[in-house]
Amino acid sequence: MIAQEFIEANQEYAANFSKPKLNRRNVLVVTCMDPRIHPYEQLGLKIGEGGIVRNAGGSAEDAINSIVVVQHVFEVSQIAIVHHTDCGATKFTTEWLRNKVKEANPGRDDVAQTIDNMDFHTFTDAEQSVRRDLKYLAENPLVLKGTSVTGWVYDVETGKISQVDEVVV
Amino acid sequence: MIAQEFIEANQEYAANFSKPKLNRRNVLVVTCMDPRIHPYEQLGLKIGEGGIVRNAGGSAEDAINSIVVVQHVFEVSQIAIVHHTDCGATKFTTEWLRNKVKEANPGRDDVAQTIDNMDFHTFTDAEQSVRRDLKYLAENPLVLKGTSVTGWVYDVETGKISQVDEVVV
Repeated sequence: MIAQEFIEANQEYAANFSKPKLNRRNVLVVTCMDPRIHPYEQLGLKIGEGGIVRNAGGSAEDAINSIVVVQHVFEVSQIAIVHHTDCGATKFTTEWLRNKVKEANPGRDDVAQTIDNMDFHTFTDAEQSVRRDLKYLAENPLVLKGTSVTGWVYDVETGKISQVDEVVV
Repeated sequence: MIAQEFIEANQEYAANFSKPKLNRRNVLVVTCMDPRIHPYEQLGLKIGEGGIVRNAGGSAEDAINSIVVVQHVFEVSQIAIVHHTDCGATKFTTEWLRNKVKEANPGRDDVAQTIDNMDFHTFTDAEQSVRRDLKYLAENPLVLKGTSVTGWVYDVETGKISQVDEVVV
């Protein structure tokens, strides 16, 4: 079981623990939950520096709750959207996933209704999906005026990031 | 600007890049976006091992899209919910944040309506919020039968995790 592995690994971590220096670099990174993504190392952030939101695909729309919190409570004015090549979100469609969930819940009209109202923000091209997210944030009145939103693609084959665009809201 | 810092840090990362060994440990970790949280090191996960979802507070409810994806597309059957002490989500309430957004958007009834439909899953006690999330997942038909959901609190003062509970859905 993973629980016992976590407990043992954390004992070692806690034994060598020193409180991280907080050096908030006024940035929120929104990126994918994929195990190959390591935003700290890939972007040069240390623990204590910058908030990191992760979800399936690195969707800005799915991250909107956290974006509102980080802007209105913590006054963060730079957001970086980082999607990646070979993303899981390119391997299926929202329609396919809705049908799979419905098939797993036969006769459950409530589940069918819930899943039909969920969008999984899938895409076929990481650069296009980053542009879609930049547009979404630029047009969203919940995002504070003056926010810099940069968009990036991380290449899982090379470890390189490429900047797609920047918008100032 | 943070963009230039990311580019420079990533050049060094990419220069030393080797593709991570994929060793998926059949777990999705849901935790907070807080800069003091480093789920890999704190739980003993290496890059390539396990999906990581992060949002404000580490809310399971806010992470439901990603949970559905990881279960139905990637067949992950273990979920770990990790909240932490001194969390930002204990420093405000949903009502306070809704009012703050409304004040920043005077006369915008559309914004008021949108924000009134958003819930920020704030809490006063991390252990209680973990229990709330375990209950939410246990009762949610979108979560696959047989899923093990463990709940944890990470102490930012000591680096230690404590297991709160486990439910099997």
